Amino acid sequence: MERILVIKVGGNIIDKEEALHQFLQDLSKINTPKILIHGGGKIATQLSKQLGIESKLVNGRRITDEKTIDVVTMVYAGLINKKIVAQLQANNCNAIGICGADANSILSHKRVNNLIDYGFVGDIDEVNMDFFLSLLEKQLTPIIAPITHDKNGLLLNTNADSLAAAIAIALSKDKKVSFYYCFEKNGLMENVNNDDSIISHVKSSEIEQLKEKQIITDGMLPKIDNIKYALENGVEKVILCHAQNILSNVNENAKFGTTFTKN
Amino acid sequence: MERILVIKVGGNIIDKEEALHQFLQDLSKINTPKILIHGGGKIATQLSKQLGIESKLVNGRRITDEKTIDVVTMVYAGLINKKIVAQLQANNCNAIGICGADANSILSHKRVNNLIDYGFVGDIDEVNMDFFLSLLEKQLTPIIAPITHDKNGLLLNTNADSLAAAIAIALSKDKKVSFYYCFEKNGLMENVNNDDSIISHVKSSEIEQLKEKQIITDGMLPKIDNIKYALENGVEKVILCHAQNILSNVNENAKFGTTFTKN
Repeated sequence: MERILVIKVGGNIIDKEEALHQFLQDLSKINTPKILIHGGGKIATQLSKQLGIESKLVNGRRITDEKTIDVVTMVYAGLINKKIVAQLQANNCNAIGICGADANSILSHKRVNNLIDYGFVGDIDEVNMDFFLSLLEKQLTPIIAPITHDKNGLLLNTNADSLAAAIAIALSKDKKVSFYYCFEKNGLMENVNNDDSIISHVKSSEIEQLKEKQIITDGMLPKIDNIKYALENGVEKVILCHAQNILSNVNENAKFGTTFTKN
Repeated sequence: MERILVIKVGGNIIDKEEALHQFLQDLSKINTPKILIHGGGKIATQLSKQLGIESKLVNGRRITDEKTIDVVTMVYAGLINKKIVAQLQANNCNAIGICGADANSILSHKRVNNLIDYGFVGDIDEVNMDFFLSLLEKQLTPIIAPITHDKNGLLLNTNADSLAAAIAIALSKDKKVSFYYCFEKNGLMENVNNDDSIISHVKSSEIEQLKEKQIITDGMLPKIDNIKYALENGVEKVILCHAQNILSNVNENAKFGTTFTKN
């Protein structure tokens, strides 16, 4: 096991049954050892609404209160995670669904912020690399829900992008890691309105310049900051691509997306 | 690893926060390799009600329709399972929460019945013993939610008692298994109204007689049938006891409960 693929799939794919189905079929065809981290999508928000749980915002930031952590635990670590696992199993991919509390695999702490109490939100402290490697060695494919724990009994809502980056970084200490960031766009585009204007390669050092040029803006900013952080902490390459291109990108050297490298 | 404890804890304990908390603290103190199977409790029913999902009965039997399998997957494999894992982790017990779809650990088929379509209910076909042994060898404690899969993509609601018995039987092929059946009573009682009338030992061959004498009745019948089935299929002993006595029973040779053996 020389190379490991760490694959993040976003909520926008999770929400679309057919897109998710195709993505999981493609994922099953990848033979390289792989770990999937999935986002949450809209199901938790819909469920909260149905249950009459108001979504709380403080200074424009979403708060995870006690009822909401229960809902996201149910939806992310229960419904979404197990549906993904069952579909992968049907495609002969031996998946195992876990969250960060399982096997103490991802340790976090409740976010400390003097201005806003975010509630049950976790910032990651430690990834148990040995555990993930032991699963991969057994030809298992870990499927990770974005819920972590503080080892004092609290489950914590954790940003799936940060979680994926933390896992990619941890595994990079021992292995070569290709980190695939799959979402509903084709990659980073020179012109956001032109799907053919994909920038095929970006060096970490060019990122600030792309921000200044407004090529990296808005919703792309936190994603790219995560990518930069991953590259600066040992991840060999990050591929930002459409979820529907995961298989062709793995087989054809990231032809259909943007590849980020340190140098 | 000579002996393995397979421990089933019932829904009535799951529903009581303090009782569950104490049970998990006690469980953490048990050093013998162990597997916990948990029931569902009332949370799923309450959630279904809140969501306006009607509970469907056909000929008095509960049906698991499409909305209900989503709810039980959320609640059993998500909320309850991960809360148990987080609490055990806080007590330094290295728990890992899974359902039967994970690592293809418990394979079932959708129940076939000519008279009633039970919906998404699974009857167990196979337990992946090697997977459970590999977790135990790594000093992990598997925590199993009563959701299985058919390897064709369906998640299936599965009776937790049957699931626990199937796991105990599977592990008995290779190891000595003590199967603890923990619930809200002290064991099998000669007189159901007298807590001190516990029958300390029952042989498998005596079970039919106890049914005739009406000592085994009502809700106890399926439990005892499961116990009998486990004994007839290789499980060395089954201990029926109160959840609050799990630790003392493990340490003091099942003193506070009813022990069932084949002979």
